[in-house]
Amino acid sequence: MARGRSEQVLARRYTEGGAADGGRRPDEVIVEEPLEIRLDGQRAATTMRTPGHDFELAVGFCFTDGLLAGAPVVSCRYCGTGSAVETEFNVVSVGTGGAAPAPEARLGTTSSSCGICGSTQLDDLRARLEPLPPHEPWDPQVLHAVTEKVRADQELFSRTGAAHAAASFDRTGAIDVVREDIGRHNAVDKVVGRLLLDGRLPASGHGLFVSGRASFEMVQKAWAAGFEAVIAVSAPSALAVETATAAGLTLAGFVRGQAFNVYA
Amino acid sequence: MARGRSEQVLARRYTEGGAADGGRRPDEVIVEEPLEIRLDGQRAATTMRTPGHDFELAVGFCFTDGLLAGAPVVSCRYCGTGSAVETEFNVVSVGTGGAAPAPEARLGTTSSSCGICGSTQLDDLRARLEPLPPHEPWDPQVLHAVTEKVRADQELFSRTGAAHAAASFDRTGAIDVVREDIGRHNAVDKVVGRLLLDGRLPASGHGLFVSGRASFEMVQKAWAAGFEAVIAVSAPSALAVETATAAGLTLAGFVRGQAFNVYA
Repeated sequence: MARGRSEQVLARRYTEGGAADGGRRPDEVIVEEPLEIRLDGQRAATTMRTPGHDFELAVGFCFTDGLLAGAPVVSCRYCGTGSAVETEFNVVSVGTGGAAPAPEARLGTTSSSCGICGSTQLDDLRARLEPLPPHEPWDPQVLHAVTEKVRADQELFSRTGAAHAAASFDRTGAIDVVREDIGRHNAVDKVVGRLLLDGRLPASGHGLFVSGRASFEMVQKAWAAGFEAVIAVSAPSALAVETATAAGLTLAGFVRGQAFNVYA
Repeated sequence: MARGRSEQVLARRYTEGGAADGGRRPDEVIVEEPLEIRLDGQRAATTMRTPGHDFELAVGFCFTDGLLAGAPVVSCRYCGTGSAVETEFNVVSVGTGGAAPAPEARLGTTSSSCGICGSTQLDDLRARLEPLPPHEPWDPQVLHAVTEKVRADQELFSRTGAAHAAASFDRTGAIDVVREDIGRHNAVDKVVGRLLLDGRLPASGHGLFVSGRASFEMVQKAWAAGFEAVIAVSAPSALAVETATAAGLTLAGFVRGQAFNVYA
């Protein structure tokens, strides 16, 4: 069986002064397992993720990374690998009946904002994605309220202190889909995958909340999915601001405590 | 010229009630740019990073990812690409005079804990790395004090609110090398790269501080570099605890506020 989303390990607790606070006791930690994502049977990516909503993650990843290239998703399933039972749930195949182009081999892509490499910089994005249609300005009060609402839904974070969250919300600030994962990028892909499977992309009239900082890739994923706004608990990067401007996306950061900034 | 580590963008500030706090004003944001890392002329990886300490990042990445396979680094330089001047500083080549094996093509690796794929799971790590030699227990008070000390050195974080930090420290809690980057993994690679260039690996007698959570890959990098302890501001994942146990590494998490946990 696949592992759960969190599990218990024994830990020894120390107080501020450095004194041990009793013996070893169970502590709830988040689970991190590899997921291999295949597109029409060919390996597209492997990501370290928190198990759960794996189909959404696989479909969302293929979509936001541009691998589908407009092809509709016709199937999604776990693939047995013939080895230990546990690993049966660590491979997901997304099927388009061959309509999507074969995923290309990349040379050791690794990145702080995961999954991005030189070939997907802003210019390439501009070539792949149209600027979003113009939209009414978002109500700053709505953007501000969303953070508090999502926090109430961060069930895994409350348990483990180590989960990122992403959420979609509408113009009234109502929260739509919330997903958690040890990786911020996975949390976003899970939200986008849910919307895609529900036939609700592009996500016009909706905004995307991310619990970390707004990096280039978060804005890229939001743009690909057609969100009109991105709000991040933490600050954006310079490239994220540039990308949001090119996309015509509202970008708000530092939505924490007393005030926040709207960058684009 | 390469861009700096942070730059100013115009942002409109809103107060809690949603009222605009004056017009648009400059706000300092962190810079995020791709760095292509080559090993003996062949592309090994591309990472989104904050410019600065690029040689350390390139060397540290090649080392912690196992690409050097024991080969000594004999050169490190920026490679002109013949295009715009700015991009001349976005390609770094690490040279071993051909002693390192050629980097292998990977299929679209992407990951929450960046750069890791199925091929580098715990079993593969065990095959590649020996458990660390036994070490004296670390003083909990020393581990606790390190966080505060590093915070004082997080210069880029104070300016932009969006930089991760990594640092090496000794058994007395003295901070050795501090590096910042928009990516946690890059910050760790920069610290490891500095130690390698100084001929100070394996880092026995030293611990590694990371400003985020302790994921599998952070522990993997610490193990590869021979650190005896990892302390993280946030919680570890289950796989990180398992990996630290296999390595014989002390792993402390949640080193924040009043108390912290020692997991392995």
